[in-house]
Amino acid sequence: MESVFQNETIKAILEKYRRIWAIGHAQSVLGWDMEVNMPKEGILERSVAQGELSVLSQEFLLKPEFVELVEKAKGIEGLNEYERGVVRVLDRSIRISKSFPPEFLREMSEVTSQATKAWEEAKRSDDFSKFEPWLDRIIDLAKRAADYLGYEDEPYDALLDLFEEGLTTKEVEKMFDKLEKELKPLLEKIMEEGKVPREHPLEKERYEREQMERVNLWILQKFGFPLGVRSRLDVSAHPFTTEFGIRDVRITTRYEGYDFRRTILSTVHEFGHALYELQQDERFMFSPIAGGVSLGIHESQSRFWENIIGRSREFAGLIYPVLKENLPFMANYTPEDVYLYFNIVRPDFIRTEADVVTYNFHILLRFKLERMMLNEGVKAKDLPELWNEEMERLLGIRPKTYAEGILQDIHWAHGTIGYFPTYSIGTLLASQIYYHMKRDIPDFEEKVARAEFEPIKAWLRERIHRWGSIYPPKELLQKALGEELNPDYFVRWVKERYL
Amino acid sequence: MESVFQNETIKAILEKYRRIWAIGHAQSVLGWDMEVNMPKEGILERSVAQGELSVLSQEFLLKPEFVELVEKAKGIEGLNEYERGVVRVLDRSIRISKSFPPEFLREMSEVTSQATKAWEEAKRSDDFSKFEPWLDRIIDLAKRAADYLGYEDEPYDALLDLFEEGLTTKEVEKMFDKLEKELKPLLEKIMEEGKVPREHPLEKERYEREQMERVNLWILQKFGFPLGVRSRLDVSAHPFTTEFGIRDVRITTRYEGYDFRRTILSTVHEFGHALYELQQDERFMFSPIAGGVSLGIHESQSRFWENIIGRSREFAGLIYPVLKENLPFMANYTPEDVYLYFNIVRPDFIRTEADVVTYNFHILLRFKLERMMLNEGVKAKDLPELWNEEMERLLGIRPKTYAEGILQDIHWAHGTIGYFPTYSIGTLLASQIYYHMKRDIPDFEEKVARAEFEPIKAWLRERIHRWGSIYPPKELLQKALGEELNPDYFVRWVKERYL
Repeated sequence: MESVFQNETIKAILEKYRRIWAIGHAQSVLGWDMEVNMPKEGILERSVAQGELSVLSQEFLLKPEFVELVEKAKGIEGLNEYERGVVRVLDRSIRISKSFPPEFLREMSEVTSQATKAWEEAKRSDDFSKFEPWLDRIIDLAKRAADYLGYEDEPYDALLDLFEEGLTTKEVEKMFDKLEKELKPLLEKIMEEGKVPREHPLEKERYEREQMERVNLWILQKFGFPLGVRSRLDVSAHPFTTEFGIRDVRITTRYEGYDFRRTILSTVHEFGHALYELQQDERFMFSPIAGGVSLGIHESQSRFWENIIGRSREFAGLIYPVLKENLPFMANYTPEDVYLYFNIVRPDFIRTEADVVTYNFHILLRFKLERMMLNEGVKAKDLPELWNEEMERLLGIRPKTYAEGILQDIHWAHGTIGYFPTYSIGTLLASQIYYHMKRDIPDFEEKVARAEFEPIKAWLRERIHRWGSIYPPKELLQKALGEELNPDYFVRWVKERYL
Repeated sequence: MESVFQNETIKAILEKYRRIWAIGHAQSVLGWDMEVNMPKEGILERSVAQGELSVLSQEFLLKPEFVELVEKAKGIEGLNEYERGVVRVLDRSIRISKSFPPEFLREMSEVTSQATKAWEEAKRSDDFSKFEPWLDRIIDLAKRAADYLGYEDEPYDALLDLFEEGLTTKEVEKMFDKLEKELKPLLEKIMEEGKVPREHPLEKERYEREQMERVNLWILQKFGFPLGVRSRLDVSAHPFTTEFGIRDVRITTRYEGYDFRRTILSTVHEFGHALYELQQDERFMFSPIAGGVSLGIHESQSRFWENIIGRSREFAGLIYPVLKENLPFMANYTPEDVYLYFNIVRPDFIRTEADVVTYNFHILLRFKLERMMLNEGVKAKDLPELWNEEMERLLGIRPKTYAEGILQDIHWAHGTIGYFPTYSIGTLLASQIYYHMKRDIPDFEEKVARAEFEPIKAWLRERIHRWGSIYPPKELLQKALGEELNPDYFVRWVKERYL
């Protein structure tokens, strides 16, 4: 396998980068182990180890010799696209790392660690006042972070870019304006006369973990997930995907014991993330251009598998026999029941349990509030009321507790502001990718019905996965689809599926 | 919890040591994951990561500022015993690390990596010639390693000290001379008129993994192993113990599907290792004096639980009900059968399957051969014949294949020469500890019968575990037992149990 890296400066950079890569590999394994295996009192030593590794990685990234090499590479003419990708990714990482003074990072780490505990307690006791002072500190930290990072139009831009390279508040605003205008009447229409139900008896059916484990493994095998060869499926409190490189990509799921679509759809969702990492170009191994380019693009892959494939009528038909084989109660239901159950639309309070149509409203709400925190000096104490009003306006329901309202997500306690919009970007992009793929694979639905996933995976690999992080997300989209993110596709998809 | 480290130089050392500790933590997690979880094609990236971390750890250990601090601390009067322990352990690590030029370490790593593959192939095809040239290279490397390390009497001393601080060839020779003289006639007598059989029908009984999993978990629960809190039990090809600190200590076992004493005794063995780590003084956390002091002392702990407790008549009685509950065939056997089955004595070819009495002869043989390699210029080609002759002389049996002879162990392929004697040290020490413990716990056997393991664990903690690596092994033994290693205890134990 010939190396794609020929330039001597780039080679010198990658030689030095290898230990940063190795530390990242270790951090990922430690993180995965913590969620999947770690005995509970291992937390103290694990946290200290993770903290040290994280400082170490920063130190190597910001070592003068390394930074100088990257600076030098920026001036070299005639680098190939892979080499330019290396320079772009590292330059961005260095710029972001350099922005924050060490004291700020320490403060951030201390505040968020305590805020997370306060949030847990506040959520458990449904008492917002326990979290309120911490949220104010986090808003303050987020503002300072934005100032350190710098921005053109407004502070929120700086945070958005952190999670989705090049994304601006204006773009997100435009996207949500359009979505709200189109989707609100659409949601009402779906609720009144749509083809999908607001609830289904399958939501209440109970199962044993082993039953759904067999179903999930069957599905993953149909997808061609290389279990035991390059991947694993494990169990954790919150499903996630992690990669330790290109050849060891692991997903987790969870088994609630009821409402079995949750474990299926979360497994299918994580498979989408994993496939992105598994289908990287192996020549990028150990380099900073291996791996998905952004949260939004990554989420488009998981949502593609979850929403476009996992919630399709053909997929319901495909998995019906294995469901019937493992779940005795399925004898009372048809494949169409499974399809309807997977596509329930019902305004509800919890984002992570939201259906495809209402999901984006949950994100829109968070986007609005985050923007107000950053740009308009809104304080934590005002947020619960703002949250509830917005829920009522968008979905017609009003949380009765903080736990089902403003305290439901952990993100803010972690200091993560500006992340939520990437979820919507992923959701919208998934449908956009679908319509593009349909041009090349007109019998897409038949292929899903017959479990012929290879052409679908190959399409994703060629258009998106194999490019790793070479191009920034917007450029990748242009190359892959010939256009930018366009919410119209999602609206069309909702209409076609739900009306 | 007040810190045991008061001196400012020591504190500065420990501050810097923390990242070496963190890298070690990561290396251990990566190693554990590789044996227990890793999908098979993850090996390439994992090896690269481990290699980088290992270089990184060496670099930090040998950083001039760090070495200077340790040098400075060596000259400080009035350090407490904990602080002196820190200095001793680090000084030794630095001295060993400094001994080897980087080119030598690289050569060692390359040769052993290829030698391991050659050994696997040689063993599979039972063709010693495939391994022979590699073994010659490894002997050469071992000699050079001894020269780099330096020694007083003979090269083998340098290697022994690497694995068991302060151990000399003379001491090992004396130990084995005594053992051979006493144990050879004893073995013959046991075979002729002993109280234990040469074979037992339970060896052939088959089981399902789940059955023995329940038994192992039951035993570990009786031992008070903190499963899920500070420990785990997993499955790997070769059982081992690993610690990620004091609060996360994991053991593995394996399930062959027959000869169930193997999985029990290996679980009990690893529990002994784990207990040593779990019972460290928590004030040593993140410091180099946390953790077992040497391979020999560690093995004494595992052998204590395996041989003294696990093979006792009382333990057989204790576990008989749970065996009966899980293994239907147990209805045909008595507790005495279990005891006899656990104590079969039978000269055989494979070290890892050897009984307690013949085990030390396997080690004696390896010690003799290793010493000849290092000191007497013996070449690889002569070794199979030397091996077979020695087997015949010691155990009266002659291997018919290389796989059941010289190719059985992986150690030499890994470049590990001088390690084997620590196995015998552990075995001998286990009985020595037992007789000392009996003075304080005269009803030791009754306690085992009643599963009252707390006093036994407390004794081990107070005498051995809590001291971590403060004292070198010989000094620890003096403090714990008031005497040095003495093979007489083992001979006495064999007589009492087997005659």
